Amino acid sequence: ESRVSPQSPAQAATGAGTAVPITVAHGDGIGPEIMTACLSVLDAAGARIAPEPIEVGEAVYARGVSSGIGPDAWESLRRTRVFLKAPITTPQGGGVKSLNVTIRKTLGLFANVRPCTAYAPFVATRHPGMDVVIVRENEEDLYAGIEHRQTADVYQCLKLITRPGTERIVRYAFEYARAHGRRKVTCMTKDNIMKMTDGLFHGLFEEIGTHYPDIEREHLIVDIGAARLAERPERFDVVVTPNLYGDILSDIAAEVAGSVGLAGSANIGAHCAMFEAIHGSAPDIAGQDRANPSGLLLAAVQMLVHIGQGDVAERIHNAWLATLEDGIHTADVHRDGVSNRLVGTQDFARAVIGRLGLAPRTLRAASYAAAAKPIAVPLVSRPARPDKRFVGVDVFIDWRGTPDGLATAIRQVYGGALALTMITNRGVKVWPDGLPETFCTDHWRCRFMPAGTMAANPAQAAQMVGRLLAAGIDVVKTENLYLFDGKPGFSLGQGQ
Amino acid sequence: ESRVSPQSPAQAATGAGTAVPITVAHGDGIGPEIMTACLSVLDAAGARIAPEPIEVGEAVYARGVSSGIGPDAWESLRRTRVFLKAPITTPQGGGVKSLNVTIRKTLGLFANVRPCTAYAPFVATRHPGMDVVIVRENEEDLYAGIEHRQTADVYQCLKLITRPGTERIVRYAFEYARAHGRRKVTCMTKDNIMKMTDGLFHGLFEEIGTHYPDIEREHLIVDIGAARLAERPERFDVVVTPNLYGDILSDIAAEVAGSVGLAGSANIGAHCAMFEAIHGSAPDIAGQDRANPSGLLLAAVQMLVHIGQGDVAERIHNAWLATLEDGIHTADVHRDGVSNRLVGTQDFARAVIGRLGLAPRTLRAASYAAAAKPIAVPLVSRPARPDKRFVGVDVFIDWRGTPDGLATAIRQVYGGALALTMITNRGVKVWPDGLPETFCTDHWRCRFMPAGTMAANPAQAAQMVGRLLAAGIDVVKTENLYLFDGKPGFSLGQGQ
Ligand SMILES: NC(=O)c1ccc[n+]([C@@H]2O[C@H](COP(=O)([O-])OP(=O)(O)OC[C@H]3O[C@@H](n4cnc5c(N)ncnc54)[C@H](OP(=O)(O)O)[C@@H]3O)[C@@H](O)[C@H]2O)c1
Ligand SMILES: NC(=O)c1ccc[n+]([C@@H]2O[C@H](COP(=O)([O-])OP(=O)(O)OC[C@H]3O[C@@H](n4cnc5c(N)ncnc54)[C@H](OP(=O)(O)O)[C@@H]3O)[C@@H](O)[C@H]2O)c1
Repeated sequence: ESRVSPQSPAQAATGAGTAVPITVAHGDGIGPEIMTACLSVLDAAGARIAPEPIEVGEAVYARGVSSGIGPDAWESLRRTRVFLKAPITTPQGGGVKSLNVTIRKTLGLFANVRPCTAYAPFVATRHPGMDVVIVRENEEDLYAGIEHRQTADVYQCLKLITRPGTERIVRYAFEYARAHGRRKVTCMTKDNIMKMTDGLFHGLFEEIGTHYPDIEREHLIVDIGAARLAERPERFDVVVTPNLYGDILSDIAAEVAGSVGLAGSANIGAHCAMFEAIHGSAPDIAGQDRANPSGLLLAAVQMLVHIGQGDVAERIHNAWLATLEDGIHTADVHRDGVSNRLVGTQDFARAVIGRLGLAPRTLRAASYAAAAKPIAVPLVSRPARPDKRFVGVDVFIDWRGTPDGLATAIRQVYGGALALTMITNRGVKVWPDGLPETFCTDHWRCRFMPAGTMAANPAQAAQMVGRLLAAGIDVVKTENLYLFDGKPGFSLGQGQ
Repeated sequence: ESRVSPQSPAQAATGAGTAVPITVAHGDGIGPEIMTACLSVLDAAGARIAPEPIEVGEAVYARGVSSGIGPDAWESLRRTRVFLKAPITTPQGGGVKSLNVTIRKTLGLFANVRPCTAYAPFVATRHPGMDVVIVRENEEDLYAGIEHRQTADVYQCLKLITRPGTERIVRYAFEYARAHGRRKVTCMTKDNIMKMTDGLFHGLFEEIGTHYPDIEREHLIVDIGAARLAERPERFDVVVTPNLYGDILSDIAAEVAGSVGLAGSANIGAHCAMFEAIHGSAPDIAGQDRANPSGLLLAAVQMLVHIGQGDVAERIHNAWLATLEDGIHTADVHRDGVSNRLVGTQDFARAVIGRLGLAPRTLRAASYAAAAKPIAVPLVSRPARPDKRFVGVDVFIDWRGTPDGLATAIRQVYGGALALTMITNRGVKVWPDGLPETFCTDHWRCRFMPAGTMAANPAQAAQMVGRLLAAGIDVVKTENLYLFDGKPGFSLGQGQ
């Protein structure tokens, strides 16, 4: 079963002419000046919005609020559900938390959408034909931030990939492609190595993709995929990936498009959405009317599409393209021979306003007609629960010695329902039949499975752990082993 | 304490004129022809080697050996400890294991070293000044391959970063830089997110780097680092990274150098080393005398340096550069206007042989004088064991319901020495004081810490798990929490 979430109040309020309340943060550094420029364009273009300013960032951190955001701001965000955010300055060090991570996680902004486009010949780029959108999963993967150190040698971080999280981002990518008239979605994972986690992502991509026969799909291993994106970005259209890869890929895409000052991004959730430029607060040029407001403006264009004002989004986007074409450029993209006029932040905004109603002549015009209906944020299906059966446990032990010594020690103190079948160190099987060349840390994974033909249960595993601990064997973690509908929910040891 | 490993028999045998036994695999597809070409150059240049052929790859897989390598081959490898390997064809699907992963893990080849150089104007490239060496950790990280599924929704892969593994690769990178006259080592991690695992890598990089004051060091967050490598590779020299990032970065570097057919790589271990081209067996052009043997030849150059025959390595490398400069090119790099003669595989080798003793005129000549002494493979220091103290446990539970419901259920059945302090879902705190917007899977992490002021112990944690299980609460894994020398060995929940 797959449904569509109820529209946000913002979405419901459109059509008519009612102003949609949106939360606005003017930010730090160049933030206030680019926000002023941006709102002046939105106003002139007839955006039906009612901005509510909130304070986040430097001033809030300075008051000792470690998250950089106070209760009033949360209240506004949770009411308007739409956030247009200028860049903020994150104080260095000292217990401060990333505002973006906090907002993303707290509001469940599962998708990060970043269009990276080249504007040749008006902006210098090595890749004139490039027009890529990176759709990055935003909440899980290694970024769940669950880390443990349990021995002197070894530190661990959990990579979590979930079925509902993956399903949602993949569906969103296909819905996005369809709404924006795009033809291909490329998925990138490393599922030749991570067969279960990345395998899930790739598998759901193929499965869900069959419901979008109008969209071509391809999968690339992320190493060669990143290399191709760096060297031949023209061959990509929409790219969907897990969080970490997406982080790397979206920076590559923005960099090779040659337009870090020209790109905006959307963070989409089931209930809320946040829109911002991809650059930071650039304190070195703050207050000088030199900053390019384009990244924030393009983020605002995405916001307008999101709240169902595609008509206004299209007017602004096309006027902005016409401004670029006319060679009216801020310092960051100004080039002799290409540019006609060097302008400051506010003059650039005025130039865009002066072109509202015009379309670009050379660059491809933006068209948001298809997106008049906002993209449905897919709720997740909950398939029937699989049959889950306990078949053993991996017990991790802090131990300085040889694999054979550890096996002997274990078997001296425990001989119950579960039997030691394998020991690995950093994933490589070292018992039985290890090789002397294998380097071993103090972190050993001991796999136990039922000794006889009787089924085992988790309680026996807990008992065994108790016995090992009582004998001074330093168990630091456990991972149960299950079959799901008869299929193993665990990988084999390398060399097993 | 930091020592240097005993020299391999290969290293000990040099100087004199004694032939060093090396294991050679002719491989599949274009493998045999490029190996023939390569060995003919080594022979003509006076390499003091005694090749021992072994069979690996397609033919061995076809005999039903799932690892692609038989006992005789292992015997040779473990005796010679030096492996020159042509590419092999990995059969598609069906229980076959990657030969490279098996060899790397079994022989403990901890470092993957891949020089990526541009040869402008003789080979087309967008980045004429590029000359980067990627030194990638090769054994741990997510590639330990430890994956578990323990609920319907959630799949997990363990990322393991170890102190000895990190120390070794970082030291190797600095030793490599020094031996090859390089000036800077750049470390790339994502330690703003993964503060413990990537934090360890970055921290050891800074610590070890202070012992190499002659080498500049810098650290970049891997997302922006990958973007810079893609767009401005000229600014990098040696790059050292954990396994996954290194996998991505080395493919980017090879691709933007424009020379996938021209790059070789070394896999270095404490006991053994393997040298190969970075490309595969290119079955489409096999047997046609069209393949470029350069990647394998440059790998062999690295091998000669490794076994202490820097003089021969230098002769070959410079003759090869001179051949490129003379416009004698195989089809893959041939360009009208730049190339003078289109040659096949064996003619290219003959052209290199004809130039032994010559140096390039425009390209920078190779010099391995400094490396006459092979790079010491650093053994790891084992610092004094830190004081480790148990302070709680994270218990992961498969549960369908609300966070409050789970907290209530737990507290109804357990009220012992440990108290429930926090519940997170995908790393986000959902109890106490969660937000209704947070999407929850069926995978809950419950953090327990001592209820009173008394110290707790792991046995109490095991007992608690037993109690939860007995009450039907489905505990699927545990992670103990420790202080190391008073410092927490675990991360806080997001929002905690
Ligand atoms: N989402 C966010 O709020 C966000 C994102 C990233 C960083 N930050 C924060 O921003 C602060 C500064 O970070 P940073 O210096 O690394 O990155 P940055 O603010 O993006 O600035 C880097 C450089 O890019 C140029 N630049 C960026 N935006 C520009 C614009 N709109 N117009 C013209 N030039 C622009 C400037 O270069 P020139 O020197 O060449 O003029 C600037 O010095 C930090 O406190 C960081 O934490 C916030
Ligand atoms: N270490 C290894 O042994 C290794 C590494 C990678 C892949 N493989 C295996 O190799 C097989 C083929 O993989 P693949 O097609 O993905 O990659 P590939 O063998 O590297 O070949 C890809 C293409 O690159 C070109 N190429 C590669 N090496 C060349 C050379 N020396 N001279 C001229 N052109 C060269 C050819 O392009 P044109 O068509 O333009 O001529 C070839 O079709 C697979 O079975 C794979 O598993 C083995």
